[in-house]
Amino acid sequence: MSRVHNFAAGPAALPESVLRQAQEEMLDWHGVGASIVELSHRGPEFIQVATEAEADLRRLLSIPDNYAVLFLGGGATTVQALLPLNFAAPGQAADYVLSGHWGKTAIKQARPYVAAHVAATSEADGFRTIPAREGWQLSKDAAYVHITANETIHGVEFRDTPDVGDVPLFADFSSSIASEPIDVSRYGVIYAGAQKNLGPVGVTVVIIRRDLLERAGQPRADILDYRSHVKGESMLNTPPSWNWYLLGLTVKWMLAEGGVDEFARRSARKSGLLYDVIDNSGGFYRNEVDKAVRSRMNVPFFLHDDALDKPFLKEAAEVGLISLKGHRALGGMRASIYNAMPEAGVQALADFMRDFQRRHG
Amino acid sequence: MSRVHNFAAGPAALPESVLRQAQEEMLDWHGVGASIVELSHRGPEFIQVATEAEADLRRLLSIPDNYAVLFLGGGATTVQALLPLNFAAPGQAADYVLSGHWGKTAIKQARPYVAAHVAATSEADGFRTIPAREGWQLSKDAAYVHITANETIHGVEFRDTPDVGDVPLFADFSSSIASEPIDVSRYGVIYAGAQKNLGPVGVTVVIIRRDLLERAGQPRADILDYRSHVKGESMLNTPPSWNWYLLGLTVKWMLAEGGVDEFARRSARKSGLLYDVIDNSGGFYRNEVDKAVRSRMNVPFFLHDDALDKPFLKEAAEVGLISLKGHRALGGMRASIYNAMPEAGVQALADFMRDFQRRHG
Repeated sequence: MSRVHNFAAGPAALPESVLRQAQEEMLDWHGVGASIVELSHRGPEFIQVATEAEADLRRLLSIPDNYAVLFLGGGATTVQALLPLNFAAPGQAADYVLSGHWGKTAIKQARPYVAAHVAATSEADGFRTIPAREGWQLSKDAAYVHITANETIHGVEFRDTPDVGDVPLFADFSSSIASEPIDVSRYGVIYAGAQKNLGPVGVTVVIIRRDLLERAGQPRADILDYRSHVKGESMLNTPPSWNWYLLGLTVKWMLAEGGVDEFARRSARKSGLLYDVIDNSGGFYRNEVDKAVRSRMNVPFFLHDDALDKPFLKEAAEVGLISLKGHRALGGMRASIYNAMPEAGVQALADFMRDFQRRHG
Repeated sequence: MSRVHNFAAGPAALPESVLRQAQEEMLDWHGVGASIVELSHRGPEFIQVATEAEADLRRLLSIPDNYAVLFLGGGATTVQALLPLNFAAPGQAADYVLSGHWGKTAIKQARPYVAAHVAATSEADGFRTIPAREGWQLSKDAAYVHITANETIHGVEFRDTPDVGDVPLFADFSSSIASEPIDVSRYGVIYAGAQKNLGPVGVTVVIIRRDLLERAGQPRADILDYRSHVKGESMLNTPPSWNWYLLGLTVKWMLAEGGVDEFARRSARKSGLLYDVIDNSGGFYRNEVDKAVRSRMNVPFFLHDDALDKPFLKEAAEVGLISLKGHRALGGMRASIYNAMPEAGVQALADFMRDFQRRHG
């Protein structure tokens, strides 16, 4: 077997050592004689796994004690529907800042429940920028302000946390959580599907400032109620336990590698390698995002002639560089380079890009 | 490593051959050079896995073409909230037949959205029977009638499909799906968390008669709308792809073993072994369920003296029989013996129970 470098946007590459550990433990977790995927979520073995994963994630992200941390199924899109149901009164205003595709998804899911208001959008310029804070039109008495910290498809990211005063800031961090230090205390809710930067597909992390749980929200089933999930410690119903376990292994790996400070340094170097190739290609490769807000996680780019797209993907795959096709909404190419992508993988892609240009330029 | 016999109620034992295949493929799925947990859910590799899993499940359960099949995260409890949201008008009546703990959960999740009506309940006799069909008080113009085909905690099951006329029958089959042949066409919706009889934790199967999707239901977010999930082929958002993959391997195993007819024969023999020990123990072991509706999947039992509970669990674990503690709602013991539990495991438990009685009786 030879492992490739996988640039998928999510589900995405996992650290090889994490996969090896999961492989070794697949039939017998720690001598119990059964796999962790077979064991009761309420038994001492899984409780240990779950407790450690939460403690490790709190350490990795420096999550203050006045925040609850949930590990749930359903994906980030489900969170986007539950945010207004849990934290807004029926018909209350909620502000959305749109900087790409996923911000639009967030507002779409919220619309049945709140007066969802576009406070700012960079759609007119093809989501190549982040709307400047001073232009945001915030509502009076909004339940929250929602942003997408990093846009996976459009490749733009917030470089710092916007100040929205006393209104809680809610942020979709699916594709950049744990990629650099952030001050959690400046957010009301942070959520992330794990399948990009935190580990495996099938589990979503929701970090909620506890005082927000006192909001009445809207009539809803118990299983759609974050108060109940917090009270039930993410086990209101059977959680995606294997996925939670694999997330835990990935978080341990991130801590052992040096934590978010180290990943911030690596991400700067990794994304820099690719943007350098693109910017120095004389137009052979093109990234159209405002350089000040280019994503360090997702590098979308176009070849100067889209007839070269197919050869590019084919030749890349031949040298073990896969999943480089851009999202269908945008076309072109995209390299997703989350924490688990080694620098050697990104270097290999940069080298390939230069070589491809030499041969096809 | 020595594998034990794991009687957990869910997450539960998986076939060893399935775990071995997942182990072998963990770092490299079919020579791709990456794990299936790392690959895009929209790539050709996972689309193949997903398509095969659906086709195999349709074959295993003989699901007619006029039924849609979904593979989603969120668990069966989420389905219980989405049923009224999708298939009942606001405030419309919906009938619930309660034969145990999970029927009560189903009605609890539905109550915010419908006039949920207890059409029949066996709660007065401790959920030791199934309410006889002739006593059901069905509502006029109900959106649906809901039953729990097998109650995991109380150990009772429907022996046949009740006739509810033209009103669609919705059934929670989490703990008995694929354990015997059923006529899917007699149901409007069948749903099941996979972690008992279909495979791994973290994925839920929902089987929906397509004409029901024409019902308007109630205002709801797109991600809570089964019409959208059907249209998106369970990929409206990122699905729990690894769990779906492991479900697919388990379904292939069930087909190879002989399908639902064979598992019906095995389940009759396996449960028979345990009920025989209990019934012939002279009161040392006790199962209080009406013999006509005893579950073939979950065998709850009590020792005549609960001071023996701890020694029973300890000695059982010493001979490799684990997860026999009953649900906290009921106490006592419970042996869950789903399709993946080999007959040798049940025989070992029956032998241990007789031996334990000899030594402690």
